[in-house]
Amino acid sequence: MYFETSFPVRYYETDQMGVVHHSNYIRYFEVARNAMIAEAGYPIERCEKDGVVIPVIGVECRFRLSARMGDVLTVSAAIDSVPLAKLVIRQVVKNQRGEVCAEGSVTLGFLDSSTYRPVRCPAPLVEIIEKNT
Amino acid sequence: MYFETSFPVRYYETDQMGVVHHSNYIRYFEVARNAMIAEAGYPIERCEKDGVVIPVIGVECRFRLSARMGDVLTVSAAIDSVPLAKLVIRQVVKNQRGEVCAEGSVTLGFLDSSTYRPVRCPAPLVEIIEKNT
Amino acid sequence: MYFETSFPVRYYETDQMGVVHHSNYIRYFEVARNAMIAEAGYPIERCEKDGVVIPVIGVECRFRLSARMGDVLTVSAAIDSVPLAKLVIRQVVKNQRGEVCAEGSVTLGFLDSSTYRPVRCPAPLVEIIEKNT
Amino acid sequence: MYFETSFPVRYYETDQMGVVHHSNYIRYFEVARNAMIAEAGYPIERCEKDGVVIPVIGVECRFRLSARMGDVLTVSAAIDSVPLAKLVIRQVVKNQRGEVCAEGSVTLGFLDSSTYRPVRCPAPLVEIIEKNT
Repeated sequence: MYFETSFPVRYYETDQMGVVHHSNYIRYFEVARNAMIAEAGYPIERCEKDGVVIPVIGVECRFRLSARMGDVLTVSAAIDSVPLAKLVIRQVVKNQRGEVCAEGSVTLGFLDSSTYRPVRCPAPLVEIIEKNT
Repeated sequence: MYFETSFPVRYYETDQMGVVHHSNYIRYFEVARNAMIAEAGYPIERCEKDGVVIPVIGVECRFRLSARMGDVLTVSAAIDSVPLAKLVIRQVVKNQRGEVCAEGSVTLGFLDSSTYRPVRCPAPLVEIIEKNT
Repeated sequence: MYFETSFPVRYYETDQMGVVHHSNYIRYFEVARNAMIAEAGYPIERCEKDGVVIPVIGVECRFRLSARMGDVLTVSAAIDSVPLAKLVIRQVVKNQRGEVCAEGSVTLGFLDSSTYRPVRCPAPLVEIIEKNT
Repeated sequence: MYFETSFPVRYYETDQMGVVHHSNYIRYFEVARNAMIAEAGYPIERCEKDGVVIPVIGVECRFRLSARMGDVLTVSAAIDSVPLAKLVIRQVVKNQRGEVCAEGSVTLGFLDSSTYRPVRCPAPLVEIIEKNT
């Protein structure tokens, strides 16, 4: 399953080095993940209403090239296999010239939103991933 | 009722102008407000567990002098009168030289956290403000 | 001069009240302002390279209705008159049903980026506003 | 070299899951790193004035336990060896009960702030690390 979404850098995301602060790429990753599942018909807010929250349990990211104000970023999310207890998503941020600004992976867990105990990946999400993988 | 708290500027709060991004003063205001009521014995998370959320319904702020990385800010919150339906808080951010960086006021409402209908200021909060005003 | 831009709420912009944190509307305002002048041919990063920075010197905002995850916001920026020393922008955030979530105004100043002394609104920006007002 | 600093969770750092948004731990890491070198006498803003910027080139983080509003976090930064071209910092965020909320490592590079070409770790920073390792 693969998805990408584009948006311009926001001024408040820059820091005094004159570039996008590194923490924002972690946020960009999330924007793309959430857009992917919303587009596929199962937005995160519906998942949460269904009683499952999806916390991030791990992230790793390598920063290749600074994004700057004026850049339009394309952020991708890719899922390689149907998840059971965990979901790994590969993510890349590119600028308008196709240069990689940051790339990494994010690991998500699934928790019952009332007990906060681990649960399986919700069925609607499994179906979406199966259909697209 | 008056309270102040101090903390250093954080790097991610700066922007490419080389100063603290203006939106962060609005966040600093909140830090001081929440520290004030936590210190007084009624932290916001207990208030929310008691069934009342306190949304911001208005804010105005004048930015006087840019704060920078290396500055240690002192942020104050002042309440002049016991609230009924609304609570107005005057707020100031000063740097380590006592210079005013930003000043303004924030108006809070009170909502029932399940119905989202307006309610009176919670009794424990009224008591705290009465005792300190 | 009038401009509007649309984008979905981002998950990290929500807070534990389950809605968009109020400070983010101040950031949304900025996104629309910057998109407006970029669209008109004079993006903020070029303005800064031309030696003028445009700090926010005042902001006021009334929060009408909480935006939530899943909402697609339309943020507008409107300029009523050609600026000299200051530029006032009226701004509104609406959700996908056209309901006003927040509205307010932002006042910008103009500073020489090396001396940090006040200057007039840069000529290219004056032209853009004159042409569109 | 080892350092730790403590501060309470800020309300705006929470998200609609009711916990601190994962991206903020990456920011907490930075707060501790910058406090460490400021405390040791070579704050980041002086380093940047000396012509060297220190971008993050990699980060990895595992999220163990959600921090919540009301928690007071202690964030540590540890350096095991004197850096040449890169500086690796091990970082941990604990809550007031000593439980690990997040842990990871951050890799920093060193760039000439005008040419953006890689340089060695600045001498004052090498000295500080040597003295404390």
